[in-house]
Amino acid sequence: MFLTKVRWFALILAVSFLTGNALSAQTKPRARDIGVPFDGAPGPNNAITDVKGVEVGHTTLISGEGKLQVGKGPVRTGVTAVLPRGKNSSNPVFGAWFTLNGNGEMTGTTWLEDSGFLDGPVMITNTHSVGVVRDAVIAWKVKHGSPDIEGYWWSLPVVAETWDGYLNDINGFHVRPEDAFHALDSAHSGPVEEGNVGGGTGMICNEFKGGIGTSSRVLDAQYGGYTVGVLVQCNYGQRDQLRVAGIPVGREIGGEKVWDDDVGSIIVVVATDAPLIPTQLKRVARKVSLGLGRDGSYSGDGSGDIFIAFSTANPGAADSKGLRHLTMLPNDSLNPIFLATVQATEEAVINAMVAAETMTGINNHTVAALPHDRLREVLKKYNRLAK
Amino acid sequence: MFLTKVRWFALILAVSFLTGNALSAQTKPRARDIGVPFDGAPGPNNAITDVKGVEVGHTTLISGEGKLQVGKGPVRTGVTAVLPRGKNSSNPVFGAWFTLNGNGEMTGTTWLEDSGFLDGPVMITNTHSVGVVRDAVIAWKVKHGSPDIEGYWWSLPVVAETWDGYLNDINGFHVRPEDAFHALDSAHSGPVEEGNVGGGTGMICNEFKGGIGTSSRVLDAQYGGYTVGVLVQCNYGQRDQLRVAGIPVGREIGGEKVWDDDVGSIIVVVATDAPLIPTQLKRVARKVSLGLGRDGSYSGDGSGDIFIAFSTANPGAADSKGLRHLTMLPNDSLNPIFLATVQATEEAVINAMVAAETMTGINNHTVAALPHDRLREVLKKYNRLAK
Amino acid sequence: MFLTKVRWFALILAVSFLTGNALSAQTKPRARDIGVPFDGAPGPNNAITDVKGVEVGHTTLISGEGKLQVGKGPVRTGVTAVLPRGKNSSNPVFGAWFTLNGNGEMTGTTWLEDSGFLDGPVMITNTHSVGVVRDAVIAWKVKHGSPDIEGYWWSLPVVAETWDGYLNDINGFHVRPEDAFHALDSAHSGPVEEGNVGGGTGMICNEFKGGIGTSSRVLDAQYGGYTVGVLVQCNYGQRDQLRVAGIPVGREIGGEKVWDDDVGSIIVVVATDAPLIPTQLKRVARKVSLGLGRDGSYSGDGSGDIFIAFSTANPGAADSKGLRHLTMLPNDSLNPIFLATVQATEEAVINAMVAAETMTGINNHTVAALPHDRLREVLKKYNRLAK
Amino acid sequence: MFLTKVRWFALILAVSFLTGNALSAQTKPRARDIGVPFDGAPGPNNAITDVKGVEVGHTTLISGEGKLQVGKGPVRTGVTAVLPRGKNSSNPVFGAWFTLNGNGEMTGTTWLEDSGFLDGPVMITNTHSVGVVRDAVIAWKVKHGSPDIEGYWWSLPVVAETWDGYLNDINGFHVRPEDAFHALDSAHSGPVEEGNVGGGTGMICNEFKGGIGTSSRVLDAQYGGYTVGVLVQCNYGQRDQLRVAGIPVGREIGGEKVWDDDVGSIIVVVATDAPLIPTQLKRVARKVSLGLGRDGSYSGDGSGDIFIAFSTANPGAADSKGLRHLTMLPNDSLNPIFLATVQATEEAVINAMVAAETMTGINNHTVAALPHDRLREVLKKYNRLAK
Repeated sequence: MFLTKVRWFALILAVSFLTGNALSAQTKPRARDIGVPFDGAPGPNNAITDVKGVEVGHTTLISGEGKLQVGKGPVRTGVTAVLPRGKNSSNPVFGAWFTLNGNGEMTGTTWLEDSGFLDGPVMITNTHSVGVVRDAVIAWKVKHGSPDIEGYWWSLPVVAETWDGYLNDINGFHVRPEDAFHALDSAHSGPVEEGNVGGGTGMICNEFKGGIGTSSRVLDAQYGGYTVGVLVQCNYGQRDQLRVAGIPVGREIGGEKVWDDDVGSIIVVVATDAPLIPTQLKRVARKVSLGLGRDGSYSGDGSGDIFIAFSTANPGAADSKGLRHLTMLPNDSLNPIFLATVQATEEAVINAMVAAETMTGINNHTVAALPHDRLREVLKKYNRLAK
Repeated sequence: MFLTKVRWFALILAVSFLTGNALSAQTKPRARDIGVPFDGAPGPNNAITDVKGVEVGHTTLISGEGKLQVGKGPVRTGVTAVLPRGKNSSNPVFGAWFTLNGNGEMTGTTWLEDSGFLDGPVMITNTHSVGVVRDAVIAWKVKHGSPDIEGYWWSLPVVAETWDGYLNDINGFHVRPEDAFHALDSAHSGPVEEGNVGGGTGMICNEFKGGIGTSSRVLDAQYGGYTVGVLVQCNYGQRDQLRVAGIPVGREIGGEKVWDDDVGSIIVVVATDAPLIPTQLKRVARKVSLGLGRDGSYSGDGSGDIFIAFSTANPGAADSKGLRHLTMLPNDSLNPIFLATVQATEEAVINAMVAAETMTGINNHTVAALPHDRLREVLKKYNRLAK
Repeated sequence: MFLTKVRWFALILAVSFLTGNALSAQTKPRARDIGVPFDGAPGPNNAITDVKGVEVGHTTLISGEGKLQVGKGPVRTGVTAVLPRGKNSSNPVFGAWFTLNGNGEMTGTTWLEDSGFLDGPVMITNTHSVGVVRDAVIAWKVKHGSPDIEGYWWSLPVVAETWDGYLNDINGFHVRPEDAFHALDSAHSGPVEEGNVGGGTGMICNEFKGGIGTSSRVLDAQYGGYTVGVLVQCNYGQRDQLRVAGIPVGREIGGEKVWDDDVGSIIVVVATDAPLIPTQLKRVARKVSLGLGRDGSYSGDGSGDIFIAFSTANPGAADSKGLRHLTMLPNDSLNPIFLATVQATEEAVINAMVAAETMTGINNHTVAALPHDRLREVLKKYNRLAK
Repeated sequence: MFLTKVRWFALILAVSFLTGNALSAQTKPRARDIGVPFDGAPGPNNAITDVKGVEVGHTTLISGEGKLQVGKGPVRTGVTAVLPRGKNSSNPVFGAWFTLNGNGEMTGTTWLEDSGFLDGPVMITNTHSVGVVRDAVIAWKVKHGSPDIEGYWWSLPVVAETWDGYLNDINGFHVRPEDAFHALDSAHSGPVEEGNVGGGTGMICNEFKGGIGTSSRVLDAQYGGYTVGVLVQCNYGQRDQLRVAGIPVGREIGGEKVWDDDVGSIIVVVATDAPLIPTQLKRVARKVSLGLGRDGSYSGDGSGDIFIAFSTANPGAADSKGLRHLTMLPNDSLNPIFLATVQATEEAVINAMVAAETMTGINNHTVAALPHDRLREVLKKYNRLAK
């Protein structure tokens, strides 16, 4: 069915509801469920929301079919919101960021870098909608009644992107402020929808369908029992580089070339409840690279591989009255956090690919999902199938 | 007269015309004209546009009076566009950036940093309008017909901001895409409007009225005869720190406190036709700090002091066909460029303050202009009046 | 035999000769020779010296046995020199660096970062001998007759380190200026000695014996036919994280724990003849992380994972007379360089481990080599043995 | 008197004693004493040692006269040690660094940056003696009995430099480990020797004699009453750029050209007892630029302008047992710290120049001191003489 260019909110909300509800999220198999072996112990949801307080919301925009008519569609895009302390808190968290390859955007990082605080949510959308989402975050805050009439809070929102113009009418600018509001308002704890949802709707990863993926690790009690959660919007890579659990799965499965180059991107959000200060979180953000390395990425010139890490500990750290009292994990206790970050990143990317489904977008471009059966066959061939 | 909330385009365009036209720009005295001594030799316009190819456009939005009604005004804001090679070229320039204090936004810097290229204009507006201007730059490019239907060009625009919420209804989000288009479309070479124009309309500097300022330096022929141009949107500082030509002018003039802290910001754009590669331009951007130091800035916590530098040399550097052939000034020939950057920055800030006029904005907040006669008296007292 | 503390130059030179000569280097099997599969096409020596002009020299210091007597030994250390244009040129190369984890030292990087040039060799030694080697590089240059009597050249040498105190009397400061001179004077093109040589003599990698390793890739003619060479001094990692060709080899082989934490480090030098400017080389240096990720590293807190990249193209770039004329590979042609960097890094680490032999050092600490037969068995078990 | 090349320890100690003793330090007039006006309230010694716990020691090496004979002299150099918690503590402090222009060396910064800790002293010497001083710091620690026999502590010392080859036989490598030991062992609280002492012995600043200078500020009780202390080894700048209290003093005084370019450097150490975390200290380090800007610096290509900042608060922050409990000043209370840093930097440079005395070194090169009487005359001419 070809939808003429109308803003079908009912449809959008329906899609959002369907993909967003926990039941449907749980009924889809994840990478572990189909036998991909990973190291480390995940949390109850194997999701970034295993870090207490973290909430995730998606707005998924899917409408239209067939030939691209700029401004009319087809639309295959959306917005994802990650709220470090949930939607009812405006309490900043310590944060830091890192760029592995900079062909992308993450607004708000200049102040994040200098202040050491992430003040507000992390939003992820398509490349050409970063602006509308950015201003919308401020508007959302204003609407929710800031105590400060001049609205100085949340003035420098963090919004990241990857490019979905292969499937989506990206120059049609279909994301509206309301879509950002919805992602924020619908954020929730518990299981996180993966695959073709939110900002990940139209994304492509290693020439298979990509999108949103998540994973977590819980540290042993001897290391503090902290949780590390990762959420990715993955849109990077070439098939013949893809490794799953170390196995050259992309090359084995093969398939139609989507493109000749590594033109995509990946945004990675790392959350933890470990009490880390910004210097330490910067190191955590940098370790994400190693997880991508395990999956075979070489981070091409066209890729915006940008990572952000935050800690939900030290809830009063950003208050401005008097001296702040903080706790900090010693540097030489960071290794389990680093390892968890690497492991959860490695898994979140594969989770995104396992969850994503084949999608047809503009000009009937079709991107196939990673076939679960073939993935199992390849892992078995290399004696790496977990079950 | 109190304007009800209407989008008075006619007025806007009229204001824009009045402030924008070269004649009016020339009739206002500049800092040198009233006797402030500066080192170095400026170019013909003593403006960033003395660097061949650089064009500057402003959209100035002034409407309403009296009590703040969020969304209705009063409006005291705008958009400034700096186009490195003018509005008819989409040829990227080598560029780099630096943050002296990070309480601000400059989008597009992640790719600028990693690619070494500035691909498109530098836009400057208010803090809460960065998003709309950012997406508008992409839309403007799409509208002007990119050869690439998927619109990959100019996808990561550079947009910076300072905060005008003391005079402007910043939470009313009055800047529209059309305002960004107009700033781009009206960009021109020659004299640059200063003071209460464009992104600088509602800005405050050292507790006097601030805004847009510019200056340039032409190097001696023995150093290559290159031009260095600087444009600032200045909104930083405390009166009692202000030094003009080294003299503590702010303290001497005194006046009503606007605020107790250094809560503003300054965006600085440095252009040159010297053939510098990105590593060198990063160093140029860093030297801007020293010019601000001469003016007495201590770059407070609330300040977003973000600088960008670009070189218009090497026009084909970003082409992707085959090896690029570049010219580069040797590192040990950079000193005159560094000194020119410091000098032009020092002067551009003072030019902005000299050009800006007293303004009344929301809730009848009034910010007084730097009084020219008092400035001259103080310089004379310290034997520093040039004429 | 226990050697009393004497400076056994004869022995040192003998060892250096034995390990240094091309024949012996070629008779030791390398990772590919024993069936480890790697992607990409290496150069003739599969070594950093495949980049024309690059020379490598080692001084290997091995003396004494038994109980540690600080200042007397046992000694298991050395110096490795990488000369971008060989020992007869003082012509700087474009360069850049990156730190994945900063628990280490690489001197000279402040000027490398700001100038974009690597002026002199890259030296690698043990942690406590960085200083002596650094000043020795200046002295070596002075001795070889600088045209400038005041000796301004090579004043900021690049010297990196990893920590060999588990096997070596590191607090005995056994490296002398002469050892740095010898590494420089004996530098050569052709095959590079690997394993327990030079700076790598006493190093440990993934709880097996580590040291020096190297590898290279030659790009397809369609990508310019450039060579990328990598040399590592590897001393990082935990056995249970080690992956070889994606296979969890460390866990499968098992063995005695050397330590409980990731306390080591890795220095990586990347050379290429592709015409890259410093901004691009910084990106190349950053990609090294992805190669380490493939090998399973998580880059622990105690690790100094510091990478440097340089390009031998543009030989006159640092001259100071007049404008420099450069060639530059376009950014969107960088992908094959990035991929080659990742692949050669992945292989160089494994080459170091395959070449290194079991060593006993201070207090009879013994670190076992990676057993080649077990490695083959594990790869075979996972259907990844190449031959 | 021409001294043959002997290591005249008696002389050295005598010089060190003379310049080092508090009485002589107090008898020399400082910039304020001769009427230079500065903003802000200094601490009791107007020195970095006003920050409780900070100690400073110098070794001053002056011997020989006449023609340069490399290795024989004349010698005009030394070592300065700044110990954050005095020589009896090995307790690290939070620290950070910044480079304004990178033509210099500061070892140890890679781990400083990543760990957030400065572990040991900050040493300053000449460019060609960084290595010997670096290793000597480790040796000093080993000698003083580390609890850890393998000596992992203080393995990455921070050593910075400026270039004294115009007056000193820099290629003679006259600094020995003992000189570093002496600087450490003789460190003391109280007044700090300035001018031709320690690492500053042979330095030149704005073409007058330079060297070591220091200053401090004490914040108002309402801002916490913290102290900020600055120590500089200044060796940068061109006479015609020098501003004292904003007045173009260099140009007014004039004098013989020492060189045509800005080829020197400045190392700046900032200490505070305010409880700042590393992210905040990095910002403090960056603000040093603004103090140099006030003095007229444009930070030339040849300059190594490298700054380090540390906080003596949070004494147990680096312990590795269990969670660390920290205090932190809120970001929006940083302004008085920033301003104090700018002011103390501005003054420390002028203090160095006022204290330094005319010196003759190699080949009878002579560098004249800033003449106090002329300085006063110029300030008076511009109505800026304080008394």
